[in-house]
Amino acid sequence: MSETAGKVIKCKAAICWGAGEPLKIQEVEVEPPRSHEVRVKILYTGKLPVQSPAGADPEGAFPVILGHEGGGIVESVGDGVTSVKVGDHVIPLYTAECKECKFCKSGKTNLCGKVRATQGQGLMPDKTSRFSINGQKILHFMGVSTFSQYTVVADVSVVAINENAPLDKVCLLGCGITTGWGAVTKQPGVKGSTVAVFGCGCVGLSCVNAANLIGASRVFAVDVNPAKEAWARKFGATDFINPLQLPEGKRIQDHLVELTDGGLDYTFDATGNVDVMRAALEACHKGWGVSTVIGVAAAGKEISTRPFQLVTGRVWRGSAFGGVKGRTELPGIVEDYLQGNVKVDEYVTHEFKFADINKGFDAMHAGDCIRAVVDMW
Amino acid sequence: MSETAGKVIKCKAAICWGAGEPLKIQEVEVEPPRSHEVRVKILYTGKLPVQSPAGADPEGAFPVILGHEGGGIVESVGDGVTSVKVGDHVIPLYTAECKECKFCKSGKTNLCGKVRATQGQGLMPDKTSRFSINGQKILHFMGVSTFSQYTVVADVSVVAINENAPLDKVCLLGCGITTGWGAVTKQPGVKGSTVAVFGCGCVGLSCVNAANLIGASRVFAVDVNPAKEAWARKFGATDFINPLQLPEGKRIQDHLVELTDGGLDYTFDATGNVDVMRAALEACHKGWGVSTVIGVAAAGKEISTRPFQLVTGRVWRGSAFGGVKGRTELPGIVEDYLQGNVKVDEYVTHEFKFADINKGFDAMHAGDCIRAVVDMW
Repeated sequence: MSETAGKVIKCKAAICWGAGEPLKIQEVEVEPPRSHEVRVKILYTGKLPVQSPAGADPEGAFPVILGHEGGGIVESVGDGVTSVKVGDHVIPLYTAECKECKFCKSGKTNLCGKVRATQGQGLMPDKTSRFSINGQKILHFMGVSTFSQYTVVADVSVVAINENAPLDKVCLLGCGITTGWGAVTKQPGVKGSTVAVFGCGCVGLSCVNAANLIGASRVFAVDVNPAKEAWARKFGATDFINPLQLPEGKRIQDHLVELTDGGLDYTFDATGNVDVMRAALEACHKGWGVSTVIGVAAAGKEISTRPFQLVTGRVWRGSAFGGVKGRTELPGIVEDYLQGNVKVDEYVTHEFKFADINKGFDAMHAGDCIRAVVDMW
Repeated sequence: MSETAGKVIKCKAAICWGAGEPLKIQEVEVEPPRSHEVRVKILYTGKLPVQSPAGADPEGAFPVILGHEGGGIVESVGDGVTSVKVGDHVIPLYTAECKECKFCKSGKTNLCGKVRATQGQGLMPDKTSRFSINGQKILHFMGVSTFSQYTVVADVSVVAINENAPLDKVCLLGCGITTGWGAVTKQPGVKGSTVAVFGCGCVGLSCVNAANLIGASRVFAVDVNPAKEAWARKFGATDFINPLQLPEGKRIQDHLVELTDGGLDYTFDATGNVDVMRAALEACHKGWGVSTVIGVAAAGKEISTRPFQLVTGRVWRGSAFGGVKGRTELPGIVEDYLQGNVKVDEYVTHEFKFADINKGFDAMHAGDCIRAVVDMW
């Protein structure tokens, strides 16, 4: 039992007060966890190149505590919590796993329905918030809000992992790495097949890493940033193509179809750009090519293609959090990392103190960053 | 050996001289089959509600002999033909099966590549035509040209069937029925699942028939023609929905999602309308719904949706000729028909003499027709 159990904790959090505004580090009050809730001391959090609520949170409600990739230690638990205990090293899960809803029981998807509605509203399952500043409620984000030194999550939204895993690294398994890794490893047939990955950020590189380890016969990495070639090859790409360096008017999908005698067996979009998603589909081989959309597009954007692309045997699918069931599968991915099979340390290009969290965004906008890890203390 | 073997045959064919023009029945000269070709006496041919070259033949070259659903008897064979012999009852296949190309050998698709290029040009594999009128070459259509009393096809584009099967019925297995039947029967998981079929023409009704026989838990049929309700129920639909009769502003996909507690497990588009294709995808259940595009869209039309639809677990795929390998599988479907498992006779609402082939189109435009069969003699 920790000293703070049952009490309100005052700590620092990065608050977003409006769309596009810099985050403001302020003292926030974090209520104790209620029934089936867990309060977590966040030690490290990962940051994306662009982390605005506009993209990931369609509601876009403020004020809110962002952050969806974190690693921490359980400070206290509410009634009825049996899956984690005080002191456990944990990763918060923005994709919950209740093991009871029709989604979890289907055996076909990792998209748990249990806390989806309230999570989308920035609230805990009982429709209230645990965060406040001087009595003003602050919203949760994606069910995890890792940009706070303490956060409260539903017990279905957190998983304990091997405490030998360094949290300043495996916090990245809370989203980016797992998203790419799962998308490829859960796709049957990659072994011996040709693969193209569009976008060489954290998610894309994780796709490349997985395709290489599984034994794809050829792994094309595609990115408009020439600096990504070295990164892609380090993660296992056999080929790198910069679409901006093709002859004028040559489309990347046509180029790839030519290079591969008809197209790729599997393609993965890790860009969030709907035009790239189309190219990824159309780069697939007629008759059997499968394209997986991983990236999150801007609000209102749509994907398009000629239906002939599908009628002639291509498949367009998608994947969220890599199709990984967080509570069931994430501990195993941590073990794979500890055994040297899954790269994690290699993605960390920048480390920041919490006070410099906005600076972190700037560095990533420059495009020389894969992932930054923020030390919350 | 038939008397006509090795000789040019003069017979009647319906020639299309230009886009949108009525077919003209004229005497045509049909050359003998060359190496690996088969000359077939066509007895019956099926006709679609709309059979213009614009939709099915992007090249749109003229003059051409249309028709892609037929049944006939082998008149003579060229050198090297071993798969059929004179007198065999056959169905011409616009989707060839060579059993040797990388598509056929992949085990993943029925889209044979062997004669694709020349077929698309309206020519036989040696890049010439077997049809002419007074020395003017007439083009082939989809490799089969069944609107001629005699036609020549590649040996990979024809299959022998049980001669007990009535050709005035099983000619429809050359396209429409097989296309719907295969799309559903080759989709794993339909048994015990919810299904929606958009469009209740021949292809859609065949989907309904297959879903019902496989044991789908619920089969929704969707069509804007209220007269199709009786048809759909006859083929096994449990529910019929006319999108035009929904409350104003209510989209069919939203209506279906409500009716099915989250959406369909499987949907099939048999309309060729890209807006309906979108509705069929979006009517699918989050996490696992699979939507198959079967219909052929008008040239230049594109399908669209928000990528979120795919990221949250829906799959968009397509199917041509139902995914059926014609030479390997069609004889078995004919046997299933003879044993009473696959409906075929039920689709024939109109029968025409060859001389009335244009009249046939009129009747179908009226929407009271599922399929017309034309007696070529």
